Amino acid sequence: MGRLLSGLATMLLMLSGVQAAAVRDQVRNYRAAHEKEILEEFSALVAMRNVATNVADVEGNAAAITQALNRRGFAARLLSAGPGTPPAIFGELKAAGARRTLVFYAHYDGQPAAQPEWRTQPWTPVVRVGTRAADSHDVDWRAAAKIDPEWRIYGRSSSDDKAPIQAMLTALDALKAAGRSPTVNIKVFYEGEEEQGSHHLADILRPNRELLKGDVFVLSDGPRHASGQMQVFFGARGVAGLELTVYGPSRPLHSGHYGNWAPNPAVTLTHLLDALRDEEGHILISGFYDDVRALTPAEAAALAALPDVEAGLKQELALGRTEGSERLANSIARPALNVRGIRVGDVGEVAANVISTEARASIDFRLVPDQTPERVRERTEAFLRAHGWEVVNRDPDAATRAAHPRLVKAEWSLDYPGYRASMDAPATKAVVASIERAVGGPVLRIPMLGGSVPMHTFAAALDMPIVGVPLANYDNNQHGANENLRLQNLWDGIEIYAGLLTDLRW
Amino acid sequence: MGRLLSGLATMLLMLSGVQAAAVRDQVRNYRAAHEKEILEEFSALVAMRNVATNVADVEGNAAAITQALNRRGFAARLLSAGPGTPPAIFGELKAAGARRTLVFYAHYDGQPAAQPEWRTQPWTPVVRVGTRAADSHDVDWRAAAKIDPEWRIYGRSSSDDKAPIQAMLTALDALKAAGRSPTVNIKVFYEGEEEQGSHHLADILRPNRELLKGDVFVLSDGPRHASGQMQVFFGARGVAGLELTVYGPSRPLHSGHYGNWAPNPAVTLTHLLDALRDEEGHILISGFYDDVRALTPAEAAALAALPDVEAGLKQELALGRTEGSERLANSIARPALNVRGIRVGDVGEVAANVISTEARASIDFRLVPDQTPERVRERTEAFLRAHGWEVVNRDPDAATRAAHPRLVKAEWSLDYPGYRASMDAPATKAVVASIERAVGGPVLRIPMLGGSVPMHTFAAALDMPIVGVPLANYDNNQHGANENLRLQNLWDGIEIYAGLLTDLRW
Repeated sequence: MGRLLSGLATMLLMLSGVQAAAVRDQVRNYRAAHEKEILEEFSALVAMRNVATNVADVEGNAAAITQALNRRGFAARLLSAGPGTPPAIFGELKAAGARRTLVFYAHYDGQPAAQPEWRTQPWTPVVRVGTRAADSHDVDWRAAAKIDPEWRIYGRSSSDDKAPIQAMLTALDALKAAGRSPTVNIKVFYEGEEEQGSHHLADILRPNRELLKGDVFVLSDGPRHASGQMQVFFGARGVAGLELTVYGPSRPLHSGHYGNWAPNPAVTLTHLLDALRDEEGHILISGFYDDVRALTPAEAAALAALPDVEAGLKQELALGRTEGSERLANSIARPALNVRGIRVGDVGEVAANVISTEARASIDFRLVPDQTPERVRERTEAFLRAHGWEVVNRDPDAATRAAHPRLVKAEWSLDYPGYRASMDAPATKAVVASIERAVGGPVLRIPMLGGSVPMHTFAAALDMPIVGVPLANYDNNQHGANENLRLQNLWDGIEIYAGLLTDLRW
Repeated sequence: MGRLLSGLATMLLMLSGVQAAAVRDQVRNYRAAHEKEILEEFSALVAMRNVATNVADVEGNAAAITQALNRRGFAARLLSAGPGTPPAIFGELKAAGARRTLVFYAHYDGQPAAQPEWRTQPWTPVVRVGTRAADSHDVDWRAAAKIDPEWRIYGRSSSDDKAPIQAMLTALDALKAAGRSPTVNIKVFYEGEEEQGSHHLADILRPNRELLKGDVFVLSDGPRHASGQMQVFFGARGVAGLELTVYGPSRPLHSGHYGNWAPNPAVTLTHLLDALRDEEGHILISGFYDDVRALTPAEAAALAALPDVEAGLKQELALGRTEGSERLANSIARPALNVRGIRVGDVGEVAANVISTEARASIDFRLVPDQTPERVRERTEAFLRAHGWEVVNRDPDAATRAAHPRLVKAEWSLDYPGYRASMDAPATKAVVASIERAVGGPVLRIPMLGGSVPMHTFAAALDMPIVGVPLANYDNNQHGANENLRLQNLWDGIEIYAGLLTDLRW
């Protein structure tokens, strides 16, 4: 009886593998026949400015995405935390007789794109051959006889994070064309404020728990593994932002007539930053690591099982060294203090011989369980005070500046904590199995993504397992200039999503 | 006989004081009657863009100033080190029967004006009441019933260093209107490249030694003393510029996915800068102070005799501390390492969560005798190499970046050394005496100006005593945003120049 059941299970598994392959082939054929239509729709999606600080831009994106969902049979609408805040998109598509409901997450807002290194305009998508300035050029893909899957589409949010939205739209088109229906109920929740810290996310989720109810939360954000292999993740680092301003003289001074006497805020700032972290990534703030939860043996084993990418990455990125002496996966499993930018005076031809009035630095802290943004703020400010700094949170007046030898303005963005879930929930195991069938091989299991996605917020608000399913190429220049999506990654994403919609069982 | 001679000398001195007062009154009356005309001419002078990197702009200034000199009877023309280099202006005006020749120096080029804090356009001069953003406003001086001498004219080079050029032009107009002629031969040498390091100055001077021959070189640049008192200076710090670039990954990386592993060039740069100097202005480069010549007892005494300005300046500039623990005059008698600017990534609303590809800092070294720019370069690069840095002087390729854990591009501007002359030469003592008669009181004697003027280059090329005669208000925002000239300082400058042209004897 045991052997019979076991044999039956094996047969069902084989059948399901055959079934998955059939869906994949149909989806692939559909995609191959409609690549230009897909790119046309995706280009229009990427062409919409989407920095979340401009709510009107984000609302324009939301309206277009809602329409695109409704054309596929969704009843999509906006969820909002109040007027003037970036809305989220909610949509639902029921499947007849389905037992399970999948909730798909992506975000449609993007990072600012002020970097001068953009070779083309960030919201004017272009398809390019090659990835470097020297050896790449635009292609007229609309006129091309064949679309090369190694081509990349460039534009803000092409990979982070509009790609999963397009993958969902096209997966549904492909299934419909093949005469297939999803076998699970689908809900989508597309956030509009992720790149600005998801400050209204909890307020959107709280009154909509019932609406968002489901069996597993599939979160598509971030890149695939640097080896190119598909990966899933069970957690993500949290994030807190900190803008620091230190002060020099109240008016700019000639560096010759006052240099050595009037405090130079550039020098004050470099010393302040160096007091916060060293060159190996170690954070020097007292007690900073006290709240760090150790990796479980299973998590440590999952990290150890990841393929070697370090040597290749060092070569590709022209790195003469790395910070710390650990593997990439272990480095980003620790909390981090990243200096995003420093601004003081000018450099190069426009540099003037002045002592500036202020110097600014922008920092992001990456947090791991059980750190919280609030506690990081407390510890950082206590550390600064212990080192003689007067910490203020708004522009100081002249009297305040004159009264304090060390004065710093600290402006925080207390975003959300990190998160790590069990890697063994039946629902998330079923998702992983479906993806393995779709891609025809094993997927890597990452305990915690280095980048921040608000998994903690979802886990706190919604009572269901969460798994991260990233689609973008690892070298997508996410958040930087020349963000791009490799077309094959979009094609793969369509097949992965089609698999989840038709081939998921637990 | 001795008593008779001594009495005669006293009488001559008194007579000359009476004479000086008469000239001063005539010049003052002329100025009072022609303030709007003077301001009109000066506004047109300041309205001309004059960043020396744009030679065409500088040539436009040179042409206009040449014409203005020629209208006063000069035979002015341009001296050049070759095509495409900023020209200097030379002009000569002989006085019948004059025994002495004065060579007047100023520069007509200006610093870049890219600072966003400019309240009005840098080359659109406006006259304003008050000096701070909060309590100042434009005035329509052309329509005003009376010109307030405390008003200031704002614009790049209004004080640094077009003011002395206007003072010369108006002094000649005023003498002519009073029916007086200069009693000395006048030569002017107006440089067009001072703010870019005077790189062609020596090449201009060398073939023109004979042309520039004179009895004393009067160099007008820099500000009056912070007490408001008139000062003269007998030397100036030299200068060398250094642009540093350090490197991160060859493409921008997501700070979440790579932070703690890929080296952050912002962090590399802050640690590099902190290795070069501390927060008290002390330079940590090995051997940096070895070439510093000590102050003579006379120079130290001159510094000690300067009025106290520190407490007032700290208040005015809202400083919570000063670097080092010396008086301003002593601080700026030492060499300095000033950080002019730092640029990496972005801050504030446009900050993106990336690890940048490079980070840049701009430095100016202020040098004192007997330091040379070349030796400072050697010592700095040797120090960097001793600390594990590979130093290159052009953009490194990927292989170079990958090969070196610590890689820095160092781009130098080796401008000129510092200079300190004797304070006792008869010619410069005569200049000081004339100025004391013009202003009706003692002037301060500064052994060496903190700011850099190419006195060393003049001293090396021209065989005559040099004295610095600054005219601008000390709080002129020289080199920074909102550079300005207090009108009373221009009025005073006209009287000082008229005195030098008519009342100079040794």
